[in-house]
This record gives sequence, structure tokens and C-alpha cells, in this order.
Amino acid sequence: MKSYQAEWEELADIKRELADRDWFMGTSGNLAIRVGSSPVSFLVTASGKDKRKHTKEDFLLVNAQGEALEETQLRPSAETLLHSHIFNGSSAGCSLHVHTVANNVISELYGDEGVITFRNQELIKAWDKWDEHDSISIPIIHNHAHIPTLADSFLPYIKEDKGAVLIRNHGITVWGRTGFEAKKLLEACEFLFQYHLTLLSLTTTKSISKGGVKL
Amino acid sequence: MKSYQAEWEELADIKRELADRDWFMGTSGNLAIRVGSSPVSFLVTASGKDKRKHTKEDFLLVNAQGEALEETQLRPSAETLLHSHIFNGSSAGCSLHVHTVANNVISELYGDEGVITFRNQELIKAWDKWDEHDSISIPIIHNHAHIPTLADSFLPYIKEDKGAVLIRNHGITVWGRTGFEAKKLLEACEFLFQYHLTLLSLTTTKSISKGGVKL
Amino acid sequence: MKSYQAEWEELADIKRELADRDWFMGTSGNLAIRVGSSPVSFLVTASGKDKRKHTKEDFLLVNAQGEALEETQLRPSAETLLHSHIFNGSSAGCSLHVHTVANNVISELYGDEGVITFRNQELIKAWDKWDEHDSISIPIIHNHAHIPTLADSFLPYIKEDKGAVLIRNHGITVWGRTGFEAKKLLEACEFLFQYHLTLLSLTTTKSISKGGVKL
Amino acid sequence: MKSYQAEWEELADIKRELADRDWFMGTSGNLAIRVGSSPVSFLVTASGKDKRKHTKEDFLLVNAQGEALEETQLRPSAETLLHSHIFNGSSAGCSLHVHTVANNVISELYGDEGVITFRNQELIKAWDKWDEHDSISIPIIHNHAHIPTLADSFLPYIKEDKGAVLIRNHGITVWGRTGFEAKKLLEACEFLFQYHLTLLSLTTTKSISKGGVKL
Repeated sequence: MKSYQAEWEELADIKRELADRDWFMGTSGNLAIRVGSSPVSFLVTASGKDKRKHTKEDFLLVNAQGEALEETQLRPSAETLLHSHIFNGSSAGCSLHVHTVANNVISELYGDEGVITFRNQELIKAWDKWDEHDSISIPIIHNHAHIPTLADSFLPYIKEDKGAVLIRNHGITVWGRTGFEAKKLLEACEFLFQYHLTLLSLTTTKSISKGGVKL
Repeated sequence: MKSYQAEWEELADIKRELADRDWFMGTSGNLAIRVGSSPVSFLVTASGKDKRKHTKEDFLLVNAQGEALEETQLRPSAETLLHSHIFNGSSAGCSLHVHTVANNVISELYGDEGVITFRNQELIKAWDKWDEHDSISIPIIHNHAHIPTLADSFLPYIKEDKGAVLIRNHGITVWGRTGFEAKKLLEACEFLFQYHLTLLSLTTTKSISKGGVKL
Repeated sequence: MKSYQAEWEELADIKRELADRDWFMGTSGNLAIRVGSSPVSFLVTASGKDKRKHTKEDFLLVNAQGEALEETQLRPSAETLLHSHIFNGSSAGCSLHVHTVANNVISELYGDEGVITFRNQELIKAWDKWDEHDSISIPIIHNHAHIPTLADSFLPYIKEDKGAVLIRNHGITVWGRTGFEAKKLLEACEFLFQYHLTLLSLTTTKSISKGGVKL
Repeated sequence: MKSYQAEWEELADIKRELADRDWFMGTSGNLAIRVGSSPVSFLVTASGKDKRKHTKEDFLLVNAQGEALEETQLRPSAETLLHSHIFNGSSAGCSLHVHTVANNVISELYGDEGVITFRNQELIKAWDKWDEHDSISIPIIHNHAHIPTLADSFLPYIKEDKGAVLIRNHGITVWGRTGFEAKKLLEACEFLFQYHLTLLSLTTTKSISKGGVKL
């Protein structure tokens, strides 16, 4: 039994649940869970896998720079650098990146503003916001094709041990102190996005000045 | 075997079914089933659990005030007081509270009116309404962050052994004489809400005077 | 082993599949499969059951008038008379009645016209329509609360061994020569309805002169 | 064990996954996987089956012309000719044809233009498009009822070992070098279509000059 058996199983469990929701369309998405803190090490999904399948090659152990710590033919997900930044820059224990239709549409609708804010919504309690006038804001960053540039623009938003950042027309990255918290925030985001899109469709239309698609 | 084994299994079965529909996003939702009537006792979901997991710590037995009746490290759901009011104020056997996108959007669209009414819909027969001109109304209350205040504003709507109340931008609480009836009403509400939102999106747009989100 | 074991298993299999799609919300829906032709007998779902559960009490054998043919405490579904009309008036082998959000919304949008017609759609081949200019029409009838009256208004549309009729703000009844064909038509209807609603939401809004809901 | 056991199992696995998403409504859809290259042979779904069931009669082996290579009572899917063209005209290893609501609506909305183009979308990386200004285009062809005519109009779009073509108000055909790649492209298409329809519903309405349905 590997020393990171417990973390492996926790991440495998999260992966299975997100796969059940079909949140890895087109082999998209990548997940990471912290194993060590000094030095930083973490398990991350291997690149190019069908995440609806569950195998012994789903994850690999990497160091703070996202380099494999064990001999393996697996390559870490291309976007491992974002998880690295999270584990290096906070005490987060788990980081999840998924593409959903709702998070992509929200990222495009509010991409120019660079942020979406929710208030008067019970589910913001997932962020430990209990006051009636509390709000939460999720930043939206440009989807740089060059991963180090993307990671650089992501870095300033790692301010706490939990958080969420939308990447425009790409997906969301959510992290938390534990796998449980990261998943809770991810679900809360998805719920709020679906809620907002449904409400918007019934009340008004929003014009897009600069869109990812020709409308 | 505990004396409330049958009630536990009935509630676990309902929880499994609602979890299959993904109605507990972000660890939201809480469920309760009556065990005793004089004095009142009931099983209620423990706080802070992932309701897609099914364990021996899912529920705990509480009294009429929502206090644990057995030694346990579990805490009852924060909103247990609403279930207490239902079991104290009616003969209901089961009470279910869930957040769905549809029930949240309906609660916001009709929040200012404080009520939504359905008629000419086959599914209102779930409320034992069989006449062609019958209707059912679901009240919508403000989502007070202070639970005792929320419970106070909920109380006047507990008029029968079955019923449903929407809490604005929060979710729905539905109760019935049995677990079977509570679930039937919950499903009927969800169907009617989804129906109404779909029809509304095709026929008109409704303006929101005071919304939970900036539109 | 009962003489209708094969029919029971076929209907149970269809029920399981429709339950997996959650097409029995609020204990709605009822299903029937022919057992005999002279005299007519068929299995029909028992009233008041949760159709997501699968038990030995799911169906009961009834005669051409919908009366139980074996000693039982089960009561046939309230709408058994519609299935009776189908088995008496055609050679159909299976009849399925389900409520979905899409079929309810279509029934309301086109209720005043009393019909919805599809053409230029690959899926109308489910009705054995292979020509490029073929079309299929699905009648929409008023939802009389009095079942014999509802059945009377349904009767004129039983012209073939397969068919489909929408009941306004209630659901659809589909029948076919076999369980396989009835299910195929039911799925084709649902696909066409969802397609039509999605397209409609993107292209125009339709005004409702007399609606089941206050808009 | 048949010589094509591995290909059979790979295709069965894909079929199971697509069936889980309910992408075979009304017995629609057909799938094929290459077995040999010189001469061409492939497994293709048998006609008239419920693709949610998984049996030993799901597929049959056919030659380059789509004729059965083994004695069988099964008939290949009516649209086998399209798969033949793909395996004869490229090195593709797998070809998938499915109907979804989203791909049908897209095919109608952009049917007159004959193409839909996506850019600024992370998921176009499924086509190995990594540059920030890359785009992918999916042609849309007329749904000829006469299959050889349909296959003729499909043929010019088989330019690479992977690709996707929409057939108007019918469905999509996607192929790739492997089953893995074909499925990845199919999922990416579905995601992009659902994204586009959701965004469109929130921002503008598109008029249809010549539609498959009366609007």
C-alpha cells in the first residue's frame, strides 16, 4: 500500500462523483489532492484519460513544480501548474477544475466585467457567509493558451485556503481546505450558475459586446 | 436493532432517491421523519454531511425541541427547528427540505407576491384536488438568516398534515402524513415549477422589481 | 409461474427504464400490456404506487372493462379505461401513459389548436414515415376530470395499432403493436417535443390565449 | 473467442456509455468500429434494436460495402453506408452517429448557412487546435431520405482521419482514429452545441427562414 493511499481514494471518490454528473465531457477537467506540505507534493490526474473510467493510472504523484515524483509513463494534466500555484500559495488540500455548460456560459456573459457576484442566496453559506447581506464574488480571467501565462494571471486570486476562479470559455477551478470543501464549493458554484442563467432567461436578455461565438 | 429502525430505513431510502436526482448540491437540504408523537421525537439529518454518501451517521434522534435524545457527536441540521414546528403543529409523519434550481427561481420570480398558484394541472391531484376548477397555492416566505425568525414566519403555514412552503432563494419544505406522501408532493412541486418555468420562457418575460441578483 | 409471466417481465422492464428517466414524478403515469385478445385481458399498473420501486404488486390482471381478473387488494390505475379502449379498439399490444415537463408544455402551447404536427424530422421514421415530405400529427384533447368523459373524447383517436394522444396539462398516451414499439414512439415523441421547445425558445415567443397558468 | 473480440468490447463499452446518456432515443443512432483495413471490414450496430439493451446480437461484421461477412439474421443499420465511406476514405478507426436535441437544434438553426464555426472555446482542443485564434467548423448537410444520396453528399467532408458532420434535423456523425478519439470529439461537439444554445437563448433570437417545423 502506497503512503498516499488515503488521498488516492479520496480523489478517486470525487472523480467518480463528478464523472457521474458528466462533468468531464471531451476528456476535459483535471483534479488534484495534496499529499505533503514541506515539501509540497500532490496527486494529479494523468493527461489524456477518459475520466469516466476508473483505473490505477488515473493519478500520479508530483512535486511543487508539477514534476513526477515516481517513475511513470504518465504525464500530469497540462494545467497542473494551476494546482501547483494553489498548493504552494495556500494551505488548500484539494483543487478541482471542471468544464460545465453553465460555468462556460457565465464566464462568457460576465467575461468583460471580469467578475460575477452573488448575494441574497442561501447557497453562499458554502463560503461560510452567514449574514443576510453577505455576498461572494468569483473572478473571471482570460483563457490564455500559454499555460504559464494563464497560471500567472490566476495567481493573484489565490488569497485564501478556499476559492473559485472562472477561466473564460474554459471552466472553473475551485479549491478548499479538504476534498469535501472543494467539492461543496464546486457544487454551490454550479447551482448558482444554473440558477442565474435560468432567471436571466426569464427576465431579460444581456447583450454581448465581444463574444467567443458569432451571434 | 434500534426501535426506530423502520423509520431510519424509510428516511434513508428517500435520501438515496433525492441524492440520485442531485437535490443536495453543496451539502444543502435536510430531511426528517417522525418516530414518536407523545412526546414528539423524530430522526433528522446530521449537519455538515455529504448527502450523496450513505452511512450510519446520517441521522440522529431528537426531541420536540430538536435536541439529541441519545449520546452522539452529531449535530442536527441547522434548520431542524422548521421540522420541529411541523411535527409539533400537525400530524405529519415526514418533512423534506431541498434546494433545486427550479424551486429557487420560482421563489425569486414570485417572491414579491408571496405566493404561486397552480390550476388546470393534472398533477395538483397529488394534493387530493380532483375537481376541474381546483387550485393549489404555495406560499413564499423571506429567507431570514436567523433561523428562529425564519421558523416563526414559517409557522403560520402549518395548517394541515400536508403542505409546502417556499423560502425565497433558498429552497422548499414539504411535509406529508407519510414519507410516501411527502415525497409525492415534493416531486409534484418540482414538476409544476419546471413546467411553469419552461412555459414562461416561451411566452413572455417577467420583470423582477427586487431581485436576489443584479440583472 | 403465472401464465402472463413474459408480459409481466416485459412491462416491468419498460417501467424500470421509464423510472430511470424519472418520468413518473409525483406517482404519476400508468402502463399496460395486453395478455389476451378474445376475450381481452391485460396487465395494468396498480394505483397509488411509487413507480420507482419494483415489486410483485406493481401490476394486476384486468379484463376488457378494466376489472380485476384475480383476487387482489390492488386497484387498477384510475385511468385504466383509456388502456381498455386501446386494447378493445385496436390490435395494440402495449399502452404507456406518462407525464413529462416537455409533453405538458407542448400540450398547453398547442392546446387551442388541438394538434401538433412534425415534418422534416428524421425521428418521424419511428411512425414508419420514410418519405421526405411525410409528417405526423399528434392530437391534443381536453383534460376532463371525469375519466369516462376523458375516455370518450380519447376514443376517436384510436384509429391504428399504434398512435399517440396528448392530454392537455396532463401527459401523453402512446400505444404500439408491441412494448418495443410503444416505447420507441414514446421516446420519439419526447425527443420531438424537447427539440421543438428548444427551437421555439431561440426563435420566437408564442402567445397563449387561454392558459393553464396565470402568465 | 472471435478474432474481433477486442473491437467488439470497445464498441460495446462506447454503446453502453452513450446509452447511459440516453443518446439513442426512439432506437435512433448507429455505431461502427474498424476491424480490418485491407480489405476493409468493420463491426456495425444491427438494425432495429433497443440500444439500451446489451446483447450478443448488438453488432455484426460487414465488409467495405456494408454487407454481412458472417452468416446472420441480423441486418446492418440502414445508414451503414456512411460508416463504409468513412472507413474506405480515411484511416479512421471508429465512427459514431447519434441524435441529440442539441445537435438537431443546431443543425436547424444553421442549416441554411450549411456550417457552424466555433472559436475562443477551450474544448476545440479536442480537435488538436491549441492556438488562441484557432477555430473548427462543422458542416451541415441536407437530410436526404434516400441513403445513397445522403452518403454521396456526406462523402466530400471525409478529408481527415477525424471529423464531424451534422445532418439537418437528423443527428451528427463523428469519426476518429480510435474509439477514444471519436467519443472525445462527439462529447466536445455536444458540449459546444449545448453551450451555444444556452448563450444564444440569453442574448438574442435568431430568425429561421426555412424551418423543419412550423413556427
